[in-house]
Amino acid sequence: MLFDLSLPELQRYLPERDEPQDFDAFWSETLAAARKYPLDAVFTQVDYSMALVDTYDVTFNGYDGQPVKGWLILPRNAQKPLPCVVEYIGYGGGRGFPTDWLLYPSAGYATFVMDTRGQGSAWRQGDTPDLPSEGSSPHFPGFMTLGVLDPATYYYRRVFTDAVRAVEAARSHAGIDEKRIIVTGASQGGGITLAVSGLVAGLTAVMPDVPFLCHFFRAATITDEDPYHEIASFLKVHRDKTETVFRTLSYFDGMNFAARATAPALFSTGLMDVTCPPSTVFAAYNHYAGDKEIRAYHFNLHDGGGTHHDLEKLRFLSKVLN
Amino acid sequence: MLFDLSLPELQRYLPERDEPQDFDAFWSETLAAARKYPLDAVFTQVDYSMALVDTYDVTFNGYDGQPVKGWLILPRNAQKPLPCVVEYIGYGGGRGFPTDWLLYPSAGYATFVMDTRGQGSAWRQGDTPDLPSEGSSPHFPGFMTLGVLDPATYYYRRVFTDAVRAVEAARSHAGIDEKRIIVTGASQGGGITLAVSGLVAGLTAVMPDVPFLCHFFRAATITDEDPYHEIASFLKVHRDKTETVFRTLSYFDGMNFAARATAPALFSTGLMDVTCPPSTVFAAYNHYAGDKEIRAYHFNLHDGGGTHHDLEKLRFLSKVLN
Amino acid sequence: MLFDLSLPELQRYLPERDEPQDFDAFWSETLAAARKYPLDAVFTQVDYSMALVDTYDVTFNGYDGQPVKGWLILPRNAQKPLPCVVEYIGYGGGRGFPTDWLLYPSAGYATFVMDTRGQGSAWRQGDTPDLPSEGSSPHFPGFMTLGVLDPATYYYRRVFTDAVRAVEAARSHAGIDEKRIIVTGASQGGGITLAVSGLVAGLTAVMPDVPFLCHFFRAATITDEDPYHEIASFLKVHRDKTETVFRTLSYFDGMNFAARATAPALFSTGLMDVTCPPSTVFAAYNHYAGDKEIRAYHFNLHDGGGTHHDLEKLRFLSKVLN
Amino acid sequence: MLFDLSLPELQRYLPERDEPQDFDAFWSETLAAARKYPLDAVFTQVDYSMALVDTYDVTFNGYDGQPVKGWLILPRNAQKPLPCVVEYIGYGGGRGFPTDWLLYPSAGYATFVMDTRGQGSAWRQGDTPDLPSEGSSPHFPGFMTLGVLDPATYYYRRVFTDAVRAVEAARSHAGIDEKRIIVTGASQGGGITLAVSGLVAGLTAVMPDVPFLCHFFRAATITDEDPYHEIASFLKVHRDKTETVFRTLSYFDGMNFAARATAPALFSTGLMDVTCPPSTVFAAYNHYAGDKEIRAYHFNLHDGGGTHHDLEKLRFLSKVLN
Amino acid sequence: MLFDLSLPELQRYLPERDEPQDFDAFWSETLAAARKYPLDAVFTQVDYSMALVDTYDVTFNGYDGQPVKGWLILPRNAQKPLPCVVEYIGYGGGRGFPTDWLLYPSAGYATFVMDTRGQGSAWRQGDTPDLPSEGSSPHFPGFMTLGVLDPATYYYRRVFTDAVRAVEAARSHAGIDEKRIIVTGASQGGGITLAVSGLVAGLTAVMPDVPFLCHFFRAATITDEDPYHEIASFLKVHRDKTETVFRTLSYFDGMNFAARATAPALFSTGLMDVTCPPSTVFAAYNHYAGDKEIRAYHFNLHDGGGTHHDLEKLRFLSKVLN
Amino acid sequence: MLFDLSLPELQRYLPERDEPQDFDAFWSETLAAARKYPLDAVFTQVDYSMALVDTYDVTFNGYDGQPVKGWLILPRNAQKPLPCVVEYIGYGGGRGFPTDWLLYPSAGYATFVMDTRGQGSAWRQGDTPDLPSEGSSPHFPGFMTLGVLDPATYYYRRVFTDAVRAVEAARSHAGIDEKRIIVTGASQGGGITLAVSGLVAGLTAVMPDVPFLCHFFRAATITDEDPYHEIASFLKVHRDKTETVFRTLSYFDGMNFAARATAPALFSTGLMDVTCPPSTVFAAYNHYAGDKEIRAYHFNLHDGGGTHHDLEKLRFLSKVLN
Repeated sequence: MLFDLSLPELQRYLPERDEPQDFDAFWSETLAAARKYPLDAVFTQVDYSMALVDTYDVTFNGYDGQPVKGWLILPRNAQKPLPCVVEYIGYGGGRGFPTDWLLYPSAGYATFVMDTRGQGSAWRQGDTPDLPSEGSSPHFPGFMTLGVLDPATYYYRRVFTDAVRAVEAARSHAGIDEKRIIVTGASQGGGITLAVSGLVAGLTAVMPDVPFLCHFFRAATITDEDPYHEIASFLKVHRDKTETVFRTLSYFDGMNFAARATAPALFSTGLMDVTCPPSTVFAAYNHYAGDKEIRAYHFNLHDGGGTHHDLEKLRFLSKVLN
Repeated sequence: MLFDLSLPELQRYLPERDEPQDFDAFWSETLAAARKYPLDAVFTQVDYSMALVDTYDVTFNGYDGQPVKGWLILPRNAQKPLPCVVEYIGYGGGRGFPTDWLLYPSAGYATFVMDTRGQGSAWRQGDTPDLPSEGSSPHFPGFMTLGVLDPATYYYRRVFTDAVRAVEAARSHAGIDEKRIIVTGASQGGGITLAVSGLVAGLTAVMPDVPFLCHFFRAATITDEDPYHEIASFLKVHRDKTETVFRTLSYFDGMNFAARATAPALFSTGLMDVTCPPSTVFAAYNHYAGDKEIRAYHFNLHDGGGTHHDLEKLRFLSKVLN
Repeated sequence: MLFDLSLPELQRYLPERDEPQDFDAFWSETLAAARKYPLDAVFTQVDYSMALVDTYDVTFNGYDGQPVKGWLILPRNAQKPLPCVVEYIGYGGGRGFPTDWLLYPSAGYATFVMDTRGQGSAWRQGDTPDLPSEGSSPHFPGFMTLGVLDPATYYYRRVFTDAVRAVEAARSHAGIDEKRIIVTGASQGGGITLAVSGLVAGLTAVMPDVPFLCHFFRAATITDEDPYHEIASFLKVHRDKTETVFRTLSYFDGMNFAARATAPALFSTGLMDVTCPPSTVFAAYNHYAGDKEIRAYHFNLHDGGGTHHDLEKLRFLSKVLN
Repeated sequence: MLFDLSLPELQRYLPERDEPQDFDAFWSETLAAARKYPLDAVFTQVDYSMALVDTYDVTFNGYDGQPVKGWLILPRNAQKPLPCVVEYIGYGGGRGFPTDWLLYPSAGYATFVMDTRGQGSAWRQGDTPDLPSEGSSPHFPGFMTLGVLDPATYYYRRVFTDAVRAVEAARSHAGIDEKRIIVTGASQGGGITLAVSGLVAGLTAVMPDVPFLCHFFRAATITDEDPYHEIASFLKVHRDKTETVFRTLSYFDGMNFAARATAPALFSTGLMDVTCPPSTVFAAYNHYAGDKEIRAYHFNLHDGGGTHHDLEKLRFLSKVLN
Repeated sequence: MLFDLSLPELQRYLPERDEPQDFDAFWSETLAAARKYPLDAVFTQVDYSMALVDTYDVTFNGYDGQPVKGWLILPRNAQKPLPCVVEYIGYGGGRGFPTDWLLYPSAGYATFVMDTRGQGSAWRQGDTPDLPSEGSSPHFPGFMTLGVLDPATYYYRRVFTDAVRAVEAARSHAGIDEKRIIVTGASQGGGITLAVSGLVAGLTAVMPDVPFLCHFFRAATITDEDPYHEIASFLKVHRDKTETVFRTLSYFDGMNFAARATAPALFSTGLMDVTCPPSTVFAAYNHYAGDKEIRAYHFNLHDGGGTHHDLEKLRFLSKVLN
Repeated sequence: MLFDLSLPELQRYLPERDEPQDFDAFWSETLAAARKYPLDAVFTQVDYSMALVDTYDVTFNGYDGQPVKGWLILPRNAQKPLPCVVEYIGYGGGRGFPTDWLLYPSAGYATFVMDTRGQGSAWRQGDTPDLPSEGSSPHFPGFMTLGVLDPATYYYRRVFTDAVRAVEAARSHAGIDEKRIIVTGASQGGGITLAVSGLVAGLTAVMPDVPFLCHFFRAATITDEDPYHEIASFLKVHRDKTETVFRTLSYFDGMNFAARATAPALFSTGLMDVTCPPSTVFAAYNHYAGDKEIRAYHFNLHDGGGTHHDLEKLRFLSKVLN
């Protein structure tokens, strides 16, 4: 059922952004620190019985120079560098196997899938360790409050840095046209997509689906569904840390990245989505600074647009790539 | 958690089959009646932005000559007739879009997906109407008890007939090697696969995953999960129809089809599967008359082997096709 | 708890009706087509050990001339034709047995109970098959979306036609005074009652309790309870069919029938009813064109007024019949 | 699903009874104390718009001479004293209104419905206060542990005494044939029925449906459903009172009353009943000392045999009364 | 998640009080009647292996002169009469053991814990019987509707009277400074605390945590959580008793007691508390007539401020006692 | 309800232990590595308004020399070194505040509470970071599978090492008699207690309540409750890691530590405990090599013996300390 704002209200919902003064400095220093390590993207061909595509196991250096895994999948026998869709993954899942990622290659694009550090044990398996070099303060189970007492130690600082480096890794491969990079992902993958939209220049398109990691305070008080609810669960116990936590989260809010984006974007949201409520998605969408479109699915929850929206995305890609 | 027999018990679990005397007559008459209608398989090429595969919308005549939809997907530019994997769908889902079925084509095989009549509104959408020409007696919501008071009017009589005709439709296409047909499917799709394994000769392989529609009486009393539970829900109201219902179901029990099968088979099951309990799967497996293997996933429920098992199936296909 | 409008808001809640131009034509053609078949109401006395009442098994021809079952129960030894209460049944239930329908006969009235085609397996048993002669497009389990893509094939077209014919069947019995027919029912039975109130002339009274099948769009977005939720479940999968579905439903909306009614009515509703929310009931009530009263039960859900309201209805009947 | 013993095991399940030495003394003293008060059954005719039956509001003196309410309903214009079905009510419900009790009168019998003291606020309303003259020790919400630390103060001592007096009240009415008394009831009503079967002589028949209050220790450890679970909830807190509580309950166990019964009986049970598990019902049934029959409904829970069983009971009554 | 008013709305939320004209008369007569019995507070030293505190089992005469249990715990070897914190207990719990009540004694205060009659079987055990000398009308399981049809027989009349007598019992002990009595409790204990704040003069402080028993009508319609929901459950059955019930409750509403209070108070509430919604707490707080402070915990439910708030209370005590 | 073995079966339940050959080497190397860092236990007096006890904030160096927090609470003005109860904490909780730990000090003992690294955000707050210096492989949310692919990186390797060092820290304080150390804790605290019982010599007593971390394979297959279920959740995704995971867990199984223990022990368990099933507790108990007693609470779940058992423990302490 509907539980959030109505569609007309959503379309004009533009909450004030809570942005720390040193937001840009924080991120440029974070990325600069990561870039002190060589990227070292390694692509090893692997055999998964595929006849139409080539599959590569990928390793590159992400946050703090730590190794991050991924897959690169290319249509076999492509004649020239291809556009590449970089995909980020939803909360709790990992990169799985190359056979899980056949949509974009079948459509003739390269696809680069980034594993999410520490995740990949709640549904599709992952292979990348997380290494909180500064230690992790006590946290509620899950990743939302891992190191949340300080922006410098917060889990998503590491993930967003990995994500920027993933684009760089994709661009480093000879089969890929570095000028035609598209970023996408659903839920947490959509939140990471938004972060990358504000941190990486020269993207061809940005396609966040039912994005997570936006408008944290509203999200934490409007729904009882995890993973946003992990914030509320943490603050239920740490009653005196509310301000600290939301200050940290302001460095990671999709609204703040969206306001810095320039590439054309296609968003999606489900109007009954209790996991990533539509008002938090529209909050980012309405602040998004590039050209933009959104598909709002009326009777959908966090499943969003499903294959219907995959087809929309393929059409959108045709448009922006031609 | 484990709730059914232990693995060693499962491996030797061979319950007596409840098979009506006229089982074979029932099915040969049913199929003969359907075959009085021309098959008329029509393949219309459709554009879903796919670069590596060709996609066809399919219509063929199933039970009672009624039109049934499907997809045929072929690797583009194949040089000679290909082996074809015919896939049946899980309960409540429909054929969706061709982009939902890229695994086998990417591996170099044709794939033929059969829509399930009346279904396709609970998760992935379907496009095939059901037409119970004899009328449907009162039933519990869902498909398990649709027309269940008589084998002649039972819903799965129509579905299993469609499934046999689907193999014939696949064989009728020029790009497909009619001698190399593999049938597969998960859950309801696995149950249909078993039915086909006993009704169609000359199959190359049979791969039922976490199959449904086996050992009905045990299933209806060992779990409260739908869809098996729809039987219990119906009999809770129709207290005087227990015998009638299980007589009907005996014409549709996967154990009885398995006992007639000849092709090599790869089964899968989850030992914690409360939807299709492992004892009902092993009941069919242990009665299966062809060469056979099974993968039992210890900590899995109805998700079974997931992509891990997809890879097992690709390996099994390489073996049986070479 | 309260989740819908407050009582004062409900009392003045008069949403715009969404009525297709050919609403009346649709229904007059539908009924005319059914009336081409003879009604052929057959009343067979049956023995259920009752000493004070006579019980008859009824069959009459409903939609498309298909046979529909019912019960007729008459106080034994009545001296002259009696007023008759025609009762329609809630979602999922069937006619059960005559012993389930003793209230109105004990009060001295005849009662005629109509079985609901296809239903009667979720709680009280039914005996009437459904026969969708045009075939049923894929639907979410249940009856709400059976054939919903076209008003001509929608399930409730068949049911409402049966319901009109049921009144005619009751009127055809010699023991019944055809000028004194009352229609009633709870939930789905209340929705059918409203349909009949707008389709049948000369009724003595109309008593819909916690009626279903009113103000579909609001209902499908304000609650997650079935059966209204079946609409949302269907549209969650068929994302591109929203307009089509609500166009079909506009031919079946209790508000549109209520606006055509003339008989005096007694409604009931529970202010905490999450199955048939009070705003959907008041929407129909406030549009009801005849004399009318409503009882709103403050702390009740879909149980509505229970036996308290049965007594209200007996009092209302005394009033309108004298 | 099935969770208790299988039907063959149930049929021979005869657990040892835990019966206190002074069981008979306890009950004869209890009843003697109640009978020191005059019964004073008062029958006041009341008008509920019924044409075929006469309805009386009843008050009689039960435990400790306290007033207990009931209904007496008689077919209008009966020519001679009638057999009377005395009905006891399920847990949490009350006597409601006469219109709730039309089955037996419509079949030509008198029916006498006893209100259950203190209850009648969880579903059908009641009108009889409970008055624990000895005070009630702390108890878990509900009635199962009210005064449970001592047989003398236990709630059901008062209820069972009322129930015996209810039979005496029914017998005291001129329209009733005191030699033809039948006792019945479902769930708690079935448990009370069993108690009366062992405490009252000269009954014509005993019909406990899905009876509660039998084989307490097994019941409290085999299910988590209330009301049996109230015992476990109480002992979860009062960890040192286990022996005390089960000693009290041994004075109220249906098995012990059944072993003293002499009238012919018709039991019912649902094999999937998690509220009153079938093994606790068969425990009482197998100890029942009179002629007996039982109907076991295979796919039913606490709903038992529903109207199907009502018809069985009417047939059983015809048999024992002729 | 947030479900009630926002914090700014709560801070100015001052609903009209529903106060019967004879509110004061009712309570002065009630207390006068209880005081006709001698208080007879008896303190028996008991050994629970405590080295730093002395523990006493307490019995005193409460409502109708009936014995009520409690504990008195004193720091060992105190040199002079101490301030005493009188604690009332949450719904369903009892006094447990002295080892459950070490906070205030460890801080150097006496603590007097009152058992709640009839309760103490749902979580921490209790030892005090309830004795409704006027009988208890039918009620929904639990204590909220016990005798609710008349203020004279309502359960909380007895409890609040006990609570006033508990303060008198504490004052009667030689080790306690009768001028320095503080009352406190959480949930039901907070509701009792508020009652005492309006009924007892000369208190040093009042500390209700997440108090229950305030603003009953709003509470019964804004949440489905017990125990407030017991009111709705009762009225769902007793559809004709709404006015009667809320009239009774008006004699027991924390808002009405708060308006009579004079001692300084520290309240607490959880803004996500669905058991005792914050608007019902602020309703009492905003009507509280003495000096007052409140701590609103943003992400907490009925757990309120936990140990964080214990420390607030210790600081508040230091302040008011010095 | 009961779901595990019966009490007589439990009493003789002695499953084979799965113990790696290098179990002792693993632990002696692990502890030796930790002891290369100075313990550096620092005790800072803090003011929490306590009059009868002194409270100290504690920091000591645990695994890998990382700082671990705790509390030390001493009865004020003790004349000589006291026995000290070292307490470990249940899953998800942290050390909270000293006011949460008043039981043993009030009984005249010192108490030392160890914070659990990384935890303390699900219920009682904690203050100790976790620092997995080797990185943490992907894990299911929670702590059960953190680093579980290798005993060297498994989370509990760090925790158990901290726990051994906590005993050493307690012993290092002048107010504590190092010869009289008792270890205790409930659930995870009980599991840690068992680990310490096998790793630390010279303990006075061991009191594990409803201990967790025992007999992992059975636990992971007999219950669906977290935290044991986290293992099943992880293996549901990582289908190929079953052997690896249980090999790691064999280094941490309470049964293996119990078999090395020497101090007298008092265990407790709840026979209906679905979180830490009684068979897993009895498995450790029956292997426990020292003198031992166990209290089995029949109707309790993971709440175990509650305050009743606190009193048992105080009695047990009196016995072993005298």
